[in-house]
Amino acid sequence: MNAYRLTMSCPDGVGIVAGISGFIAEHGGWIAEANHHSDFGSGYFFMRHVIQADSLSCSLDEFKERFAPIAEKFSMKWKISETAVKKRVVLMASKDSHCLVDLLSRWQTGELDCDIVAVISNHDDLRSLVEWYNVPYHHVPVNPLNKSESFTKVENLMDELRADTIVLARYMQIIPPDLCERYQHKIINIHHSFLPSFVGARPYHQAAQRGVKLIGATCHYVTQDLDAGPIIDQDVTRITHADNVQDMIRLGRDIEKIVLARGLRYHIEDRVLVHGNHTVVF
Amino acid sequence: MNAYRLTMSCPDGVGIVAGISGFIAEHGGWIAEANHHSDFGSGYFFMRHVIQADSLSCSLDEFKERFAPIAEKFSMKWKISETAVKKRVVLMASKDSHCLVDLLSRWQTGELDCDIVAVISNHDDLRSLVEWYNVPYHHVPVNPLNKSESFTKVENLMDELRADTIVLARYMQIIPPDLCERYQHKIINIHHSFLPSFVGARPYHQAAQRGVKLIGATCHYVTQDLDAGPIIDQDVTRITHADNVQDMIRLGRDIEKIVLARGLRYHIEDRVLVHGNHTVVF
Amino acid sequence: MNAYRLTMSCPDGVGIVAGISGFIAEHGGWIAEANHHSDFGSGYFFMRHVIQADSLSCSLDEFKERFAPIAEKFSMKWKISETAVKKRVVLMASKDSHCLVDLLSRWQTGELDCDIVAVISNHDDLRSLVEWYNVPYHHVPVNPLNKSESFTKVENLMDELRADTIVLARYMQIIPPDLCERYQHKIINIHHSFLPSFVGARPYHQAAQRGVKLIGATCHYVTQDLDAGPIIDQDVTRITHADNVQDMIRLGRDIEKIVLARGLRYHIEDRVLVHGNHTVVF
Amino acid sequence: MNAYRLTMSCPDGVGIVAGISGFIAEHGGWIAEANHHSDFGSGYFFMRHVIQADSLSCSLDEFKERFAPIAEKFSMKWKISETAVKKRVVLMASKDSHCLVDLLSRWQTGELDCDIVAVISNHDDLRSLVEWYNVPYHHVPVNPLNKSESFTKVENLMDELRADTIVLARYMQIIPPDLCERYQHKIINIHHSFLPSFVGARPYHQAAQRGVKLIGATCHYVTQDLDAGPIIDQDVTRITHADNVQDMIRLGRDIEKIVLARGLRYHIEDRVLVHGNHTVVF
Repeated sequence: MNAYRLTMSCPDGVGIVAGISGFIAEHGGWIAEANHHSDFGSGYFFMRHVIQADSLSCSLDEFKERFAPIAEKFSMKWKISETAVKKRVVLMASKDSHCLVDLLSRWQTGELDCDIVAVISNHDDLRSLVEWYNVPYHHVPVNPLNKSESFTKVENLMDELRADTIVLARYMQIIPPDLCERYQHKIINIHHSFLPSFVGARPYHQAAQRGVKLIGATCHYVTQDLDAGPIIDQDVTRITHADNVQDMIRLGRDIEKIVLARGLRYHIEDRVLVHGNHTVVF
Repeated sequence: MNAYRLTMSCPDGVGIVAGISGFIAEHGGWIAEANHHSDFGSGYFFMRHVIQADSLSCSLDEFKERFAPIAEKFSMKWKISETAVKKRVVLMASKDSHCLVDLLSRWQTGELDCDIVAVISNHDDLRSLVEWYNVPYHHVPVNPLNKSESFTKVENLMDELRADTIVLARYMQIIPPDLCERYQHKIINIHHSFLPSFVGARPYHQAAQRGVKLIGATCHYVTQDLDAGPIIDQDVTRITHADNVQDMIRLGRDIEKIVLARGLRYHIEDRVLVHGNHTVVF
Repeated sequence: MNAYRLTMSCPDGVGIVAGISGFIAEHGGWIAEANHHSDFGSGYFFMRHVIQADSLSCSLDEFKERFAPIAEKFSMKWKISETAVKKRVVLMASKDSHCLVDLLSRWQTGELDCDIVAVISNHDDLRSLVEWYNVPYHHVPVNPLNKSESFTKVENLMDELRADTIVLARYMQIIPPDLCERYQHKIINIHHSFLPSFVGARPYHQAAQRGVKLIGATCHYVTQDLDAGPIIDQDVTRITHADNVQDMIRLGRDIEKIVLARGLRYHIEDRVLVHGNHTVVF
Repeated sequence: MNAYRLTMSCPDGVGIVAGISGFIAEHGGWIAEANHHSDFGSGYFFMRHVIQADSLSCSLDEFKERFAPIAEKFSMKWKISETAVKKRVVLMASKDSHCLVDLLSRWQTGELDCDIVAVISNHDDLRSLVEWYNVPYHHVPVNPLNKSESFTKVENLMDELRADTIVLARYMQIIPPDLCERYQHKIINIHHSFLPSFVGARPYHQAAQRGVKLIGATCHYVTQDLDAGPIIDQDVTRITHADNVQDMIRLGRDIEKIVLARGLRYHIEDRVLVHGNHTVVF
């Protein structure tokens, strides 16, 4: 059953909810889900509505047109999507398969409501696995000499595939700044540490070095600043002195998988609203 | 700063949010917090609003009077309270002090925004502790022969104290049915197991017997059915084969304290809406 | 690098550790890992040693022969295995793939150090998936009329495959008593509730009915008493009023996968010692 | 019932466990608890034994004397303590009472098996609370001009009190280097962040600034490097966009209390062995 997802943010004030919900009610809209957040620090208001499409007396285009003046009145930054139009997701991976298998498997069994249109990897190792899921596999090698060229290829692939979401499922290359900018808040990375601890390379080794008692993973939007983008979700798991780096890598995989899948799910359901370097996750 | 908390539930439909938020906006109400829940199973809708009192162009009484027709239109079960009028809470305890100290300490430091008007106990052991917090202590012994008489005393105390919330902070007597009924959804108990496992007496012993790997605690409203009332919150902690019953009791105390404090906090902030034997916790 | 895993239990007493470690030291054994547990309730002692094979001055057979008198002296129930000889594991599944994919994927990437020798299913749905992992797939349909016959087939397959561990990865048939007995403490099940809550069918529906705030999964050895065998591991995840049964099923899958994988890992590394209906998990 | 706690570490090798357990067995020692850890990275071995005092055929002094040659043989760093001799603990606090009440309450009810010999504070606010527990309260003001003088007073108090463990229960002054050195691995601090994230002042504000989705607390031994000492324990709790800094401070208090109490418990039971900047926690 098709539904519309309306998300918005604007400076907080009196009458915003009334304005929006009045408009929805006038058009007969049945609200299936509604979330609000008033951020006192920034003085901003955030909202997400899920409206049953067939309850509305107007089309999506008419909705957009008629809603525009309300949006303007409250200086909203807003977006409306319909569940019938699935997000087009490209997964990027390197050699580690755990996050990739996890996402493909969730997608195949219907848990992730999106189209996974391709996997792009800088290695050819995971081709057979991906192709079993009937997902096209693109091998785009990256090395220090051809990096710019490689990412031009990646960008062209994104265009051809009409990708709107890119998931770095343990993709071990740094995304160039222009790609980060073009796909702002559309590239999701999983970093294998509890950020902001252990930014950069080999976070489990850094964690072992420091002697922490919990390890974690962080799902965030990619920005030009390495591992510093808006955090979507995080989680941790307990370790003890008996766990060496190899154990940490093994235990961490489960956290990485779950946090990335959760973050991607939030994203494709338009549950994540970004404000500065913070996220509101409804 | 005073605020109104409006909570309601009604059969779900079109225009409810618009009706409410329109009304609030007309009266200039600034919404500080808003939560919605549509329960598809039961077809019910639940809402909680926090409105800044000084933003409204009418008094609380006027608000109630004018809101009534809207409430009636949608067959709402509703309630409005103001943060300036604190709930009057009576704590009941027996010999174990951990939950009692925890609540008193949170209350003294301002974390729990209520009035703790008295402690009633079937033992006299905790008097000095309670009196240090300047809270009156009432010792009402209970034994099999005087049970009915004792609870008449308890009930009279509640009347005198004008209590509206009763917290069983490890109170080891069963509350009589008529008291349960009179204070429906106003008596909060902490049961030291992850319900519905291990109902009744000595749940940690039952847990040890079964060989579980996690132990828990459950905060729920008291009904006439032992440990079967609507659950407000639960939590667990990990144990291993190395933990015997005494260790479980010790480890469980931390879960009991936290879950009870959390449940009480939700209750005094009007965050808990009961529907049948379920709770919506905003 | 090959290692021996020596596990034992016996009535507790003075000199047991000295007896064992003295014996190991005499034969030059390098202890890589050692765990002890004294259970005061039952008066039993439990131990697990991992000894580097190449450090020993004797063969495994000689070790066994020479160790026997010590074992007898302390009335030990004991076992020694070598890591070079992997356990032969058969996975059983029905239609849900999540636990199966998870285990196969962990096994393929080397995380689970065992031989998965076959998958047996009462449906044919998961064949292609399993065969991609190069694991033989046996479809043994089960219906009320042929149940006994079907499980004779299953048992014959186990014999042919020389299986020593059976994993019920969301296998939706009840294992007959004689098979339970024959493979005592060798059949591992994942039950999709936090046992002992919600035994039997549709535990998530039962959980939704009760209104719990956490859902869980339990990995246990199968006995003739449904969902009542010794618990190896359990875990939970938080839900809210916003999660319906479908959400619980979805969220529960992650817990089921992780708890089953962890339980199987403990089992194949001989970390689980069963004592009555309890487990010691080193 | 009195028990001895023997802890040791040494370069790993063959025969260490045999040497120790043989010695214990020769003297009739009943081992109530035993833990081992071989750290492959550093090549070190760690052990902790709890031996029932009355099972031994020798006194503690004789044990020490006779054990010395074995210790020397394996180049052990070792220590033996008896449970009958409780650690003498001084708590230091400033204005926040939550950790202090928590520890005093656990101690009063017998959960923490130590002597709390005094509370030292740079403020006088918590005197009445502490004195209710019959614990002497020493007010030692600290300001930028008298810091050195103040800590001389603190050190003199420690001497008078014969303190062997110092707990910084949200004590908001930096301990001078010479005191850190003198009480190496004897000063326990609770830092209100998941270290190494958010070192230094106002960690919850730092966490809010970064937009993390979990906040935590870390219990560690104090060294001259701020918040960089060996970590004993850590834990976290989930937050959402709806939690502002004040909510984080409130939610964090529960984690701080639990992690500090756990860390102190481990310490007073001689469960923590420090190796470089790492801890083994048995």
